[in-house]
Amino acid sequence: MYRSHTNGELRLENINNEVTLCGWVQKSRDLGAMTFVDLRDRYGITQLIFGEEHSEVAKSLGREDVIQIKGTVIERESKNKNIPTGEIEITVAELTILNKSKTPPFTIEDETDGGEELRMQYRYLDLRRNPLQNALKLRHKLSIEIRKYLDSINFFEIETPYLIKSTPEGARDFVVPSRMNPNEFYALPQSPQTFKQLLMVSGYDRYYQIVRCFRDEDLRADRQPEFTQIDCEMAFVDQEDVLNTFEGMIDYLFKKVKGIELSSFPRMDYAKAMEQYGSDKPDIRFGMTFNYINEVAQNKGFQIFDDAESVIAIVAEDCSTYTRKELDKLVDFVKRPQVGAKGLIYVKCNEDGTFKSSVDKFYTQDDLKAWADKCNAKAGDLILVLSGDKATTQNQMNVLRLHLGDELGLRNPNEYAPLWVYDFPLLEWDEDAQRYHAMHHPFTSPKQEDMHLLDSKPGEVRANAYDLVLNGTEIGGGSIRIHDKETQALMFKHLGFSEEEAKAQFGFLMNAFEYGAPPHGGIALGFDRLCALFGGQETIRDFIAFPKNNSGRDVMIDSPSPISSEQLEELYLETTPEA
Amino acid sequence: MYRSHTNGELRLENINNEVTLCGWVQKSRDLGAMTFVDLRDRYGITQLIFGEEHSEVAKSLGREDVIQIKGTVIERESKNKNIPTGEIEITVAELTILNKSKTPPFTIEDETDGGEELRMQYRYLDLRRNPLQNALKLRHKLSIEIRKYLDSINFFEIETPYLIKSTPEGARDFVVPSRMNPNEFYALPQSPQTFKQLLMVSGYDRYYQIVRCFRDEDLRADRQPEFTQIDCEMAFVDQEDVLNTFEGMIDYLFKKVKGIELSSFPRMDYAKAMEQYGSDKPDIRFGMTFNYINEVAQNKGFQIFDDAESVIAIVAEDCSTYTRKELDKLVDFVKRPQVGAKGLIYVKCNEDGTFKSSVDKFYTQDDLKAWADKCNAKAGDLILVLSGDKATTQNQMNVLRLHLGDELGLRNPNEYAPLWVYDFPLLEWDEDAQRYHAMHHPFTSPKQEDMHLLDSKPGEVRANAYDLVLNGTEIGGGSIRIHDKETQALMFKHLGFSEEEAKAQFGFLMNAFEYGAPPHGGIALGFDRLCALFGGQETIRDFIAFPKNNSGRDVMIDSPSPISSEQLEELYLETTPEA
Repeated sequence: MYRSHTNGELRLENINNEVTLCGWVQKSRDLGAMTFVDLRDRYGITQLIFGEEHSEVAKSLGREDVIQIKGTVIERESKNKNIPTGEIEITVAELTILNKSKTPPFTIEDETDGGEELRMQYRYLDLRRNPLQNALKLRHKLSIEIRKYLDSINFFEIETPYLIKSTPEGARDFVVPSRMNPNEFYALPQSPQTFKQLLMVSGYDRYYQIVRCFRDEDLRADRQPEFTQIDCEMAFVDQEDVLNTFEGMIDYLFKKVKGIELSSFPRMDYAKAMEQYGSDKPDIRFGMTFNYINEVAQNKGFQIFDDAESVIAIVAEDCSTYTRKELDKLVDFVKRPQVGAKGLIYVKCNEDGTFKSSVDKFYTQDDLKAWADKCNAKAGDLILVLSGDKATTQNQMNVLRLHLGDELGLRNPNEYAPLWVYDFPLLEWDEDAQRYHAMHHPFTSPKQEDMHLLDSKPGEVRANAYDLVLNGTEIGGGSIRIHDKETQALMFKHLGFSEEEAKAQFGFLMNAFEYGAPPHGGIALGFDRLCALFGGQETIRDFIAFPKNNSGRDVMIDSPSPISSEQLEELYLETTPEA
Repeated sequence: MYRSHTNGELRLENINNEVTLCGWVQKSRDLGAMTFVDLRDRYGITQLIFGEEHSEVAKSLGREDVIQIKGTVIERESKNKNIPTGEIEITVAELTILNKSKTPPFTIEDETDGGEELRMQYRYLDLRRNPLQNALKLRHKLSIEIRKYLDSINFFEIETPYLIKSTPEGARDFVVPSRMNPNEFYALPQSPQTFKQLLMVSGYDRYYQIVRCFRDEDLRADRQPEFTQIDCEMAFVDQEDVLNTFEGMIDYLFKKVKGIELSSFPRMDYAKAMEQYGSDKPDIRFGMTFNYINEVAQNKGFQIFDDAESVIAIVAEDCSTYTRKELDKLVDFVKRPQVGAKGLIYVKCNEDGTFKSSVDKFYTQDDLKAWADKCNAKAGDLILVLSGDKATTQNQMNVLRLHLGDELGLRNPNEYAPLWVYDFPLLEWDEDAQRYHAMHHPFTSPKQEDMHLLDSKPGEVRANAYDLVLNGTEIGGGSIRIHDKETQALMFKHLGFSEEEAKAQFGFLMNAFEYGAPPHGGIALGFDRLCALFGGQETIRDFIAFPKNNSGRDVMIDSPSPISSEQLEELYLETTPEA
């Protein structure tokens, strides 16, 4: 036993106890005859006092040295109310230096002086900082509670294989050459989708797994080539059952982990989400929903609106006082290439009942009042209008709305607004490939009542698919699956698979459907993202112990790296030079 | 909602309830006017009665069809006490066939008529059988309880990366070509060893993870290329702390999962295990320990013994009545090439106090009595003797001892005898490579008191390493690690790493040791094996949902498989033909 207590546990009731502590030197203050040292571990900080007899060695202690001390707990004269151990300190009788530390390349403090890259390289030191320790602790707590909830309602965690089969559908696979089966490859799973469906065929009824998934995609900001998913599937359920089950889980997690009771869990169909928010993952912590004002804005001589498919307005409450400069900044914002609007029209609804707009020469005060009425804008509000083809304008207005939400402080990170979005389209048109792709994945069931459109208007067929959205971020998605061979074959046909291709890739699943597959459906939630949201952070990186950078590299261990020619030979492989 | 109840839950108190059930047709009996159907799901079996109005469709139901019924719970006339729902049955009012099933290729019964290969190919049907459902349920239960125990004593589960770096030490890695970093490769982890040590350097103090590991080795029977490990590490601990912690876990699991209180948890050093059992994982459910009888057996003219380094005897109690035929079978057993002994000497200790041996012409009754005394054999026992060089004879005698244990029913699968074996050798000589290998891994710390032997007699240096053994099976192993750069560098040197090689492979770890690494140690337990032992089974395969066969293939999904030339090109790879 290296220690009798941790550095977070001693209190006034331990006065006069003889204790042994271990930890890292957080800081050291030399007060002449005495030296004060803050000793740190995962559990907290305890103050040590070294008297003159230890003076020399105590003064030699540097930041991050690992030491062990024996001593006596005494009451502090000047108490520190900021830390739980702040009422006591230890007079040290014996000191053992367990391991000296070189001076770390950055400070181990909540706010460090280390740059991004340096901290990634010395991730093991960055992980000593409180914010990261708290992030990983939160992640542990969440995983424990998720399992507790699902276990309590009869879900089994069942592990599925990591060495599976490459499939052309979806994102790009990481592949693993097989030595024992020359010139053949495994693939790492993008998700355990087909395996969880097979488990439903096998009668496991309620499955989950907190599982690593892999996608070899060029990394957008805040994406990782390997990520963790809460993967779930249920048999004999319809959409409502799945939604209720996982709404229950999110409710439970907020209560257990954050002590928050979620007030409501609304549901919105995809069409409405796009119409009102221009997004399939609306942030409903604030209003500012879309108003389609074609009727009152067109045919008044303003060519841009007249030519537009949609004229969309949002209302920024109490913002009629925006200055020219503030408005110009909004115009610049929407004109950035990332948003791509040609311009932005505003209408100030002045307190005195008059209106001031950037298109005053085309519209009378009565015209503008009609806009305000259409938008339910009141005196003091600011109306902002974009126009163009409908989908593009919705998308641009969504970006503007979120930007304003941020600017106006309407997106409180301590407020949580979950939302189900459902009835997603089954297929989406891929302009490059000139064919339809499954919007969710090829196992998603179409809505029975839309099946007649599958040949004539495939883009209009809705799916039994749903997303779980939290504060404007998609944290999960799922669907009721196809469970009969005929519908699955039909789907593959519509996705451009030949019968042979479908059989080669998914024959095992279609075969399984012939032996009594139950109706089933499920959901997968992004665990990294869920942790970040619970931690009130925007990025997932600090909620992953050892993340990779944007080139997919682990700069700490310097991976990936070349392998030996013997290894390549054993795998029947040769590398080809980079073009 | 597809169902109001599962098939395992209805009881007498539900009489007259209107219920909706779903499940698979287990069997159907046509009694003319009525048809009885056993409906199955994960939770149990419920008996359905179809009256004449459903006669035609009910008679058409085949095994494994998936149906939904509405009906009324009634009391059974002839109760079935063997199943929890055996006091009730359902008179069916409505029947919906959710999915027809083709006739399965084997019966879905506890004892199936399906052969090994067929069941692997249709794993999703094999997984419907009770023995497999129970195995996966047990696995889930164990994982829940392991987490509960470790969580209760402040362990954090922390996920480590799967895309790491290939290292030449240890077994062969599976590698993953990187597309974004041409001609470079990730490796899949053989274990998260270095990452868990880094987490100790980072101050996480108590880490665990139930984690997949990968080894690209030719598969011995009952090995899988991917397997699951309970991986644990602790800081500021010595060996005793680790042993007590995980002894506590095993105790807890037996209590919670099997309702068994383990009576004791003995410890034995490696030297004693080899001396007494000829094995580093002795099955201590029974005695039959080794007796070294050189002193009494040599120099009596029996050349074979006289030439032997060791003459080792075990005592089979109450076996003096073994017939000639039974003894010949034992001789044949030890002469099999897998055992490799040249012969087997026996001594029957007859009930009348006389002795009868296969070497009577060399030994007098007094000589044989001296053997019996040396072995503590009593009248009625059978002494079995092997001889030769010590290590080989120990090994052969170990095999014979276990064989006799099986034959004599001394290895009761419902009795559990755990054991710690400790003080393993640090290094073992690799005849092929003509160098020492780390017996455990290169991060294991040598015993301080043996350090002086490192140069002169490296094979005699003991390590702070330990194995957890249960009923003669190793279920885990671990060590106190090296935590300073100098000792680690020394170890790499003794393992034949150049300084450059050590730096290229493990530089990050040696660097980390310079920034205040605490003393630490840990253990990893084979989760698949633990599940099998708890399930009373010899093989792990049925405790893994989707295992691979001995060629590393998943015959159900037909993986590994060729990938497209486009995929290879993107990865800057070419395959070379098999030699």
